[in-house]
Amino acid sequence: MTESVEHRRLIVAGTGAAGLTAAIYAARSNNDPLVLEGDEPGGQLTLTSEVENFPGFPEGLSGPDLINNMKEQAERFGAELEHGIVADIDDSERPFRVELSNGDVYTCDAFIAASGASARTLGVPGEDELMGYGVSTCATCDGAFFRGEDMLVVGGGDAAMEEAHFLTKFADTVYIAHRREEFRAEDYWIDRVQQKVDEGEIEIMRNTELLEMHGSPEDGVDHITLAQNDEGHPSEKLDADGTETFDFDVGAVFIAIGHTPNTDYLGDTGVELDDTGYIQTHGGTGGDQTATDVDGIFGAGDVVDYHYQQAVTAAGMGCKAAIDADEYLEAQAEATAEAESEAAAEADD
Amino acid sequence: MTESVEHRRLIVAGTGAAGLTAAIYAARSNNDPLVLEGDEPGGQLTLTSEVENFPGFPEGLSGPDLINNMKEQAERFGAELEHGIVADIDDSERPFRVELSNGDVYTCDAFIAASGASARTLGVPGEDELMGYGVSTCATCDGAFFRGEDMLVVGGGDAAMEEAHFLTKFADTVYIAHRREEFRAEDYWIDRVQQKVDEGEIEIMRNTELLEMHGSPEDGVDHITLAQNDEGHPSEKLDADGTETFDFDVGAVFIAIGHTPNTDYLGDTGVELDDTGYIQTHGGTGGDQTATDVDGIFGAGDVVDYHYQQAVTAAGMGCKAAIDADEYLEAQAEATAEAESEAAAEADD
Repeated sequence: MTESVEHRRLIVAGTGAAGLTAAIYAARSNNDPLVLEGDEPGGQLTLTSEVENFPGFPEGLSGPDLINNMKEQAERFGAELEHGIVADIDDSERPFRVELSNGDVYTCDAFIAASGASARTLGVPGEDELMGYGVSTCATCDGAFFRGEDMLVVGGGDAAMEEAHFLTKFADTVYIAHRREEFRAEDYWIDRVQQKVDEGEIEIMRNTELLEMHGSPEDGVDHITLAQNDEGHPSEKLDADGTETFDFDVGAVFIAIGHTPNTDYLGDTGVELDDTGYIQTHGGTGGDQTATDVDGIFGAGDVVDYHYQQAVTAAGMGCKAAIDADEYLEAQAEATAEAESEAAAEADD
Repeated sequence: MTESVEHRRLIVAGTGAAGLTAAIYAARSNNDPLVLEGDEPGGQLTLTSEVENFPGFPEGLSGPDLINNMKEQAERFGAELEHGIVADIDDSERPFRVELSNGDVYTCDAFIAASGASARTLGVPGEDELMGYGVSTCATCDGAFFRGEDMLVVGGGDAAMEEAHFLTKFADTVYIAHRREEFRAEDYWIDRVQQKVDEGEIEIMRNTELLEMHGSPEDGVDHITLAQNDEGHPSEKLDADGTETFDFDVGAVFIAIGHTPNTDYLGDTGVELDDTGYIQTHGGTGGDQTATDVDGIFGAGDVVDYHYQQAVTAAGMGCKAAIDADEYLEAQAEATAEAESEAAAEADD
């Protein structure tokens, strides 16, 4: 076997707000973290052009600037950052064996999963170009930037209803485009949205799909192209009778078709995931809130939190994970030292 | 009755990291928060001269600067700050009735308790003057500033043991001064400290009390005066036989004689407190993590968290409390609107 394996005390997967805050704390606690930066360095934060609600920055700053600040801070205290995507963790042995997608292998005594969740996107023309410039996957982050504009929310689940409802605070009219007739959201959310429909603040476009977004990073979203067919899923029936394609004016598009937590690599471990792949941490009060069902593996940020999903909540959890990991590592080191001194005492007998 | 009562949608008690982050989020959600600033404006953060571990500030900044930034940010979005200490909350009626210590009375639909915990201090000469300049109540915040120095930890409980243990990372020698013979800390912590004693990193001074701290804000702590008496509680027996008073050189003093959560005003409400006065929030995953046992009252920061107590963890919880309160207020408003429209429909019959 020619495989070269490097051992690290602590590996942190992810360089969003959770991973980098964990890295700052872990580095300051002398745990010498290796921080793995995946395919979306900086995480969800880098998808918003301006962050106005991260406490401490009265003028706001860009998502990428906030992330770069955290990165610099983590490196200043000795955290090492490296590009790498975790493909697999083996928790059947200690230290853990961590295999990256490029074939590199590490071992580590503790592991913090802060690999985030990726917002699902539509994959339609204009989407990539306008993401962060009128197209967003986070109403809470970006809604306030488009006060007085017409806005489109894409989706039919709880998140889409919640975002549409929230956006009525800012929008002239909020339109919801859903590709089917029925929403899969809970009644609770459908009722709340219906009330806003009754009040004239939300308009629902059923059996409607977004085909294309038009605009520029400089001027934002100008208009969009939609398709409608009473049978549902119009984009699959563009040439069929009954499908109507039309342009529509909105100033912002919010895509709320779900997030997917990046936890595939934990599938073979004892870490408990919920039905949709989010890590189940212990929570509660007192210490060890970020502990998972595997001693030595901790979870923080959007890989755990399917509800609040704010930069500062992720950062707070990252801090907790680093403190939990530090306590775990110290306890392990002491158990080892104790076992060694007992062995030495026995050898003396 | 001449009492003038002002109604507010949301009151936030406390202007530490938790209260101000809640204020930023609540103001952005159009909940028009009134934020009450108590006797320790800015909370525990203002006790540390430099904050190096709040994510986003690679060069660090002073605790007061961080707090001022957050304050400016909250006010920018419309939060109103006012000096006031909550004396009592009446949760037997809605809206809640909030009475301040100066006699002012407010009513509010939702309330966020972010009134923090106050570190207990010794009340000895030099302590106030040197607080933040070599004297600290937070090893995690300030330990790293005194690398290579001798340090004194005052206290005999879990917090003192934990801080002393943590400080061995940085200190030349950590001394623990405890006024009695026996520690009241858990065995777990006593064992961990004993191991460090065996390794020569910690030295325990039993039946010893700190009488005075000498130094200046410019140069920090120069030396301290201690008293020792084998019977314990030497400061009560300064003139007795067997009491020895002596000067001792250390570069930093950490006072770990406990915190008291500022929750007296919740005593008559249905909010559940633990034995030491900390608010019990629901926690868990998903929404409503900061909810208390009283619908409409939420808790965030050191008034809840007796373990991590970091600025960024408090800020994260403040954000969650504002989101939880917003969801509560929206649901209340809709229930009211529904009841009114039902009443109107009945009147039409």
